[in-house]
Amino acid sequence: MTMNDGEIILDPAAIETQSFAIIDAEVGAHTYTARQWPIVRRVIHTTADFDFARATWFSPDALETGLAALRNGARILCDTNMVMAGVNKTRLATLGGSLSCHVADADVAAEARAQGITRSLLATRKGVAAGASIFLIGNAPTALYELLRLARSGAVQPALVVGVPVGFVGAQESKEALVAAGLPAIVCRGRKGGSAIAAAILNALMILAEESQP
Amino acid sequence: MTMNDGEIILDPAAIETQSFAIIDAEVGAHTYTARQWPIVRRVIHTTADFDFARATWFSPDALETGLAALRNGARILCDTNMVMAGVNKTRLATLGGSLSCHVADADVAAEARAQGITRSLLATRKGVAAGASIFLIGNAPTALYELLRLARSGAVQPALVVGVPVGFVGAQESKEALVAAGLPAIVCRGRKGGSAIAAAILNALMILAEESQP
Repeated sequence: MTMNDGEIILDPAAIETQSFAIIDAEVGAHTYTARQWPIVRRVIHTTADFDFARATWFSPDALETGLAALRNGARILCDTNMVMAGVNKTRLATLGGSLSCHVADADVAAEARAQGITRSLLATRKGVAAGASIFLIGNAPTALYELLRLARSGAVQPALVVGVPVGFVGAQESKEALVAAGLPAIVCRGRKGGSAIAAAILNALMILAEESQP
Repeated sequence: MTMNDGEIILDPAAIETQSFAIIDAEVGAHTYTARQWPIVRRVIHTTADFDFARATWFSPDALETGLAALRNGARILCDTNMVMAGVNKTRLATLGGSLSCHVADADVAAEARAQGITRSLLATRKGVAAGASIFLIGNAPTALYELLRLARSGAVQPALVVGVPVGFVGAQESKEALVAAGLPAIVCRGRKGGSAIAAAILNALMILAEESQP
């Protein structure tokens, strides 16, 4: 962005290129592969927080199974509407994917009240029943725990779990449970995470899926 | 959150209370007032990032004019749909407020293409024309610059500008321009910010508006 006689000249593509160059220059040494780094860099771009250059963790199979699912038009479940709002819909449509979030569904809310359990947990069950194979969890540890339970029971075999709940109570533990579960996963270890990060990781993966056809 | 025989027991209110206690215990010395601190604390709660205990800036009149507008059912303009998705709609309805975002409107997109300017800029103009008085800007420096231009021209007198664009190119400069403008404002100075933070600040303000009637 440059200012010129009070006029703002803005080219989003140029700004992104310049931002990535700044991140590359400032990040220092890291251990990510050439395919992992664009994902981590987009998270840093979204947060301006270089902690993610240490905290972001990939299971060995995460990119392979996640990208394959994206190229085949995956059903993607988000734990909040904020995650869903952050996903690039144009890119997703090009890949033939679909996106859903059930946490605000009326039937989920009614059943949560009736059963005395969280809407996030029931929304995860509903998404699994609908055939989701990629899971974006930016907020709710209960959504992540329920997904892990369903995976253990054989009810779902996720192609990718983006597990990045944020917070001081329960979030970190839920992410370590995901790391330990042996599923294809991308995780921000520690307390940090959130909706914007979950969406950024998917957006970066979709660019990779388009660029690097197998 | 506690685990008990594999069942997760989660009480969101209890988790929030416990999270706030952890933040209070870890934050150390800060200079925020008793009314400012719940806002900063909710930003830290949303990000797990204590940098916001230094970066968050309030203009002297921000809380007074912002809370007054919220209690009178303010029209609130968001720069992205992700900000809008993060706002607590139940609380906003109780206060009689309304929420809009025009960045994805078809007429805004068409006019942006025709004029060769950004959708964010035109979406700001449309929101001002519709009578918005509270502005949540979590992403687009151009939205913030256009709002500052409209305020200088007398086209709008904001009750509150939440100016928290994130990024490496232009974001910081746009926020310093807001600080310098003398408007009622809450700003995250530096590079950090984002949609979740803009929404968190409004959510915290709405709780204050309900709790502390004048």
